[in-house]
Amino acid sequence: MVYGGGSIKKNGLYEKILSAVREADMQLFELSGVEPNPRHTTANKGVAICKKENIDVVLAVGGGSTIDCAKGVAAAAVTKDGDVWPLVSNHVWVMGALPVIAVLTNAATGSEMDAWAVISNMDTNEKIGLGGTVLIPKAAFENPQFSYSLPEYQTACGAFDIFNHIIDNYYFAGDATFDLILEFQEAVMRAVVKWAPVAMKEPDNYEARANLMWASSMALNGVTDGSTVHGCACHLMEHKLSAYYDITHGHGLAIVTPRWLKYILDEETAPAIHRFGAKIFGVSEDMSAMEGAKAAIKELEKFCFQTLGLKANLSDLGIDETHFKAMAEHACGGGAISGIKTLYAEDLEKIYKMCMLQLDF
Amino acid sequence: MVYGGGSIKKNGLYEKILSAVREADMQLFELSGVEPNPRHTTANKGVAICKKENIDVVLAVGGGSTIDCAKGVAAAAVTKDGDVWPLVSNHVWVMGALPVIAVLTNAATGSEMDAWAVISNMDTNEKIGLGGTVLIPKAAFENPQFSYSLPEYQTACGAFDIFNHIIDNYYFAGDATFDLILEFQEAVMRAVVKWAPVAMKEPDNYEARANLMWASSMALNGVTDGSTVHGCACHLMEHKLSAYYDITHGHGLAIVTPRWLKYILDEETAPAIHRFGAKIFGVSEDMSAMEGAKAAIKELEKFCFQTLGLKANLSDLGIDETHFKAMAEHACGGGAISGIKTLYAEDLEKIYKMCMLQLDF
Repeated sequence: MVYGGGSIKKNGLYEKILSAVREADMQLFELSGVEPNPRHTTANKGVAICKKENIDVVLAVGGGSTIDCAKGVAAAAVTKDGDVWPLVSNHVWVMGALPVIAVLTNAATGSEMDAWAVISNMDTNEKIGLGGTVLIPKAAFENPQFSYSLPEYQTACGAFDIFNHIIDNYYFAGDATFDLILEFQEAVMRAVVKWAPVAMKEPDNYEARANLMWASSMALNGVTDGSTVHGCACHLMEHKLSAYYDITHGHGLAIVTPRWLKYILDEETAPAIHRFGAKIFGVSEDMSAMEGAKAAIKELEKFCFQTLGLKANLSDLGIDETHFKAMAEHACGGGAISGIKTLYAEDLEKIYKMCMLQLDF
Repeated sequence: MVYGGGSIKKNGLYEKILSAVREADMQLFELSGVEPNPRHTTANKGVAICKKENIDVVLAVGGGSTIDCAKGVAAAAVTKDGDVWPLVSNHVWVMGALPVIAVLTNAATGSEMDAWAVISNMDTNEKIGLGGTVLIPKAAFENPQFSYSLPEYQTACGAFDIFNHIIDNYYFAGDATFDLILEFQEAVMRAVVKWAPVAMKEPDNYEARANLMWASSMALNGVTDGSTVHGCACHLMEHKLSAYYDITHGHGLAIVTPRWLKYILDEETAPAIHRFGAKIFGVSEDMSAMEGAKAAIKELEKFCFQTLGLKANLSDLGIDETHFKAMAEHACGGGAISGIKTLYAEDLEKIYKMCMLQLDF
């Protein structure tokens, strides 16, 4: 059983699971203290438990970080040397792993239904995705009540993480004719915009928590990304931010995403950015594409920094420009990020710098 | 390999699969001639082949009827007596079956991603669903091009079958707060309304066929029915129609559904029927709920009987009232159909009679 801090002990979930395990006459060993950006060293502690105790199933109880850590444990537990980092750093597509079961407490990363884990190495400032179909949890328990105790700030960060997963695959260029995918994506984003502020104000609002949980899963389980281009640089850029500064992923994304949209805005992308604004934020469809796109980005900023109440600039989080060049090069891996617009290290550095600028609403 | 008539031989799919099987050095045995409403006797022929040839996998190549038949074969192949009808008639939840693989040629039933098969017994006028998680195809190949050769009438009937699967779970009563489900349902219905007429006019329009195929799968694979009430009597009512008269399922549904909506329309259901009309057909949101609901039903009738070009009355299909009483009692199974409104045999008989009346647009 993999979990983070004490929140599941406070809200009774820990005791509930323990008694279910006892009733089922199963044995349970614990790996606790998983970090918000889970470390490879923590996963490796879990691997050691698996090897020593001959573990059959890795049970994750928590949010995305916990589930990601559990996936890292599950993948490395079946390797000879029992170290997750070589799998991660060599971008191995995992073909064998212990089965993972997830009990979700935080609507955010989508890890409860996807094939990915993000593991951090704080020694090398690396934060890298580990993937494999076998890492998809065999079952995910999504009880909205388990997320009632989530604090307001984490609710906001999780909500924007979901939102950005959709942005990652949203058709910001060209003609989208696969209505079913496009409309599903827009439905998920609207659900986040509608219910995140409700969950922040009323943490035990069942409908709000239910919509956010389901949005979390639907954003990354494959339903909403058929045939689309993974065209957004924001997740890669943010991974460098949280790898260097250990900030909350969803907050970093909220700072980066509107700037990225501004950077890629041109005649080609304007119509789709305008549509995004119209469908999600009710921007008027009567404007020109360029005006509509600008209004859409403004609405997105308002959502992030007023509705969700997140600080709008990297400088507000105590980050300066020292590492921007290295982070940008790191994110591009010596090449470029392809997508809606091909972005090189110098582009990313400019976007990071835009994240320092004050916005006005 | 289970298939229907010769259409897959005409469009080259049959030869394509045969050569793939040869290349893979596998052996293939054929069950052809599956009926539009697949018979238990046909499935049993497939079971005999499975037992004689020690079959590993049942490959369905076709539309819903073919896939349903293949599921019946797969389920009965692992039973001792090799007869599918006792499983069907005893409403067994199937726990073991040969694996089924589907190659879809017709966007309609959703069988390519669901756990159900509908098998008909023409001796007893019964058409019953057989279910089981093990019946979900292990893989479904959904290439829109494989449905290019589908005739206009079958395209229309398939489209309405999809539409009705959503209606089956649409929240026609009470407050729906699970936006993600509601909006996904509406997206599927809008996709059908938009793309079905395109596919009818341009059978090789890729976007139209792609949207319809994906709509078919999304309507029944569980994504669009989380937490909703299966509240519609139409599928049950139509199953009796096609069991007695062997008509095309989607056409029967198109005749029944608007009448059913009229029958359940009251102060309680009006707001949701109005919403349905607004979201799917652009009915004005400014009307009263009752007026809006009536306009919604009128738009649905226009879609079925003008856009899709389907005949509007059972009398047009040569059906008279002879069996309505028996069909209604049969559908209720001695009790009632629960759902948005609890309907008894006498209600269903009235709805069947409404299906004889001329409509005016």
